[in-house]
Amino acid sequence: MLRAARKRKFCAMLKPIDRINIVLVGTTHPGNIGAVARAMKNMGLARLHLVQPRIFPSSEATARAAGADDVLGAATVYDSLDEAVADCVLVIGASARPRAIGCPMLAPREAAAQVAAEGRGQVAIVFGREHSGLSNEELDRCHYQLHIPSDPQFSSLNVAAAAQIVCYELRLACIDASAGTNGDASIDADAGEVIGQQEMERYYAHLETVLTELGFLDPANPRHLMRRLRRLYHRARPDRNEINILRGILTAVQEYGLTLRRRYDQGSAPQVD
Amino acid sequence: MLRAARKRKFCAMLKPIDRINIVLVGTTHPGNIGAVARAMKNMGLARLHLVQPRIFPSSEATARAAGADDVLGAATVYDSLDEAVADCVLVIGASARPRAIGCPMLAPREAAAQVAAEGRGQVAIVFGREHSGLSNEELDRCHYQLHIPSDPQFSSLNVAAAAQIVCYELRLACIDASAGTNGDASIDADAGEVIGQQEMERYYAHLETVLTELGFLDPANPRHLMRRLRRLYHRARPDRNEINILRGILTAVQEYGLTLRRRYDQGSAPQVD
Repeated sequence: MLRAARKRKFCAMLKPIDRINIVLVGTTHPGNIGAVARAMKNMGLARLHLVQPRIFPSSEATARAAGADDVLGAATVYDSLDEAVADCVLVIGASARPRAIGCPMLAPREAAAQVAAEGRGQVAIVFGREHSGLSNEELDRCHYQLHIPSDPQFSSLNVAAAAQIVCYELRLACIDASAGTNGDASIDADAGEVIGQQEMERYYAHLETVLTELGFLDPANPRHLMRRLRRLYHRARPDRNEINILRGILTAVQEYGLTLRRRYDQGSAPQVD
Repeated sequence: MLRAARKRKFCAMLKPIDRINIVLVGTTHPGNIGAVARAMKNMGLARLHLVQPRIFPSSEATARAAGADDVLGAATVYDSLDEAVADCVLVIGASARPRAIGCPMLAPREAAAQVAAEGRGQVAIVFGREHSGLSNEELDRCHYQLHIPSDPQFSSLNVAAAAQIVCYELRLACIDASAGTNGDASIDADAGEVIGQQEMERYYAHLETVLTELGFLDPANPRHLMRRLRRLYHRARPDRNEINILRGILTAVQEYGLTLRRRYDQGSAPQVD
């Protein structure tokens, strides 16, 4: 009792993601166990529990774990689901099949939010057998049933694929919960220095000059050409590096013309490539 | 041309989820191809494209597809990524590695929102090789890089697991989009005719030729110039009208040079404005 209390206290200090247990019940193919270990480690989860796996350990599991050997090596094997979730304060069972007398259904995102909001204690997400899923008796152990939205015509996901989706949502929810978004989303690694509208105007002026020199733009009949080009480059929002390249190309066009004319003036033969 | 226009018109009538193409580049293990087919069908996607798969078809792919035989059977095999995405107006490449000169990064949810918002045209999500992912040249074909948030210490997901997450987010986004807004949301009323990747490639080839003629691009020392320009124009996503203008400018530069040289050959004085 005292030991359990200490364990709970320790557990309360853990981040939500470290309090998540993935439980696989009656897995037939050892490759799937390895694939789940990999999916977990990819998402920063580490606690794997196996209830009556058909074959474990196995070289096939290790191969599919592809480096998540630590998760696989630390996996605990149990005789029953009851033992595997004994310490858990929240148990969520994944199942595509609605039951006549079921527990409340959650989508993966809702389940992840529920887990992240769970202030203390161990939580478990339980996945069933490849061919028959979780039994009614096993789902009865769960507070919620997790249902992954899928095509009703072909709704049975591979167990590791299902675990991947759930671990992904858990990571997002737990990272959101603990640290905003931890900067994970939509970082533009190479966003260059932004430039002001004044510099864009200099570019447009240069562009207009060159297009006129080329005879492509007729100042007497400009036909919205510059407006269309402005719209295009406004969408792209060039950074300093890019605007330098674009200006460089315009200058190259002007020098190209000047060079050809100068050669003529000097009476030297034009160099034809 | 007429055929392409008809195809585009037909395509505009399809629901967003039916306009999504999953492209696997250089997949080594046939089991992964099967697992991706299953992940797709679970989420209601059907269009699978394979660029230089090592082994296909294969009994291992069929076994892992677990009933998604129709998706596998309809999969098209290509020699190059360019061919596989030729018709696509939006191409998103999945990669864990940020690149020095990269395209804008999207999280899976953002990428799915982008796809759902794409009012018309085919879109492609591209997944790379098991061991090396997508090359820089392949990512250069993409408008966006998709990055699945994962533990930085163990960030490489199995390709089918990655596809499962992305297909899941695509299903949620497309179902949300069609349920919430009757499926015709976010079409920019003023947007011109969209163009496929093949036409963008023609533009880049033309641009490269002209920059080389100008001496601005040194083929012996190209210094990422084309990659930077691709990135800029990928962001802008020109419509047909705009790409015609851009091509017209390139042709005008070429004719400008030709005219100046021809005048010299004919011995007439160059006309200086």
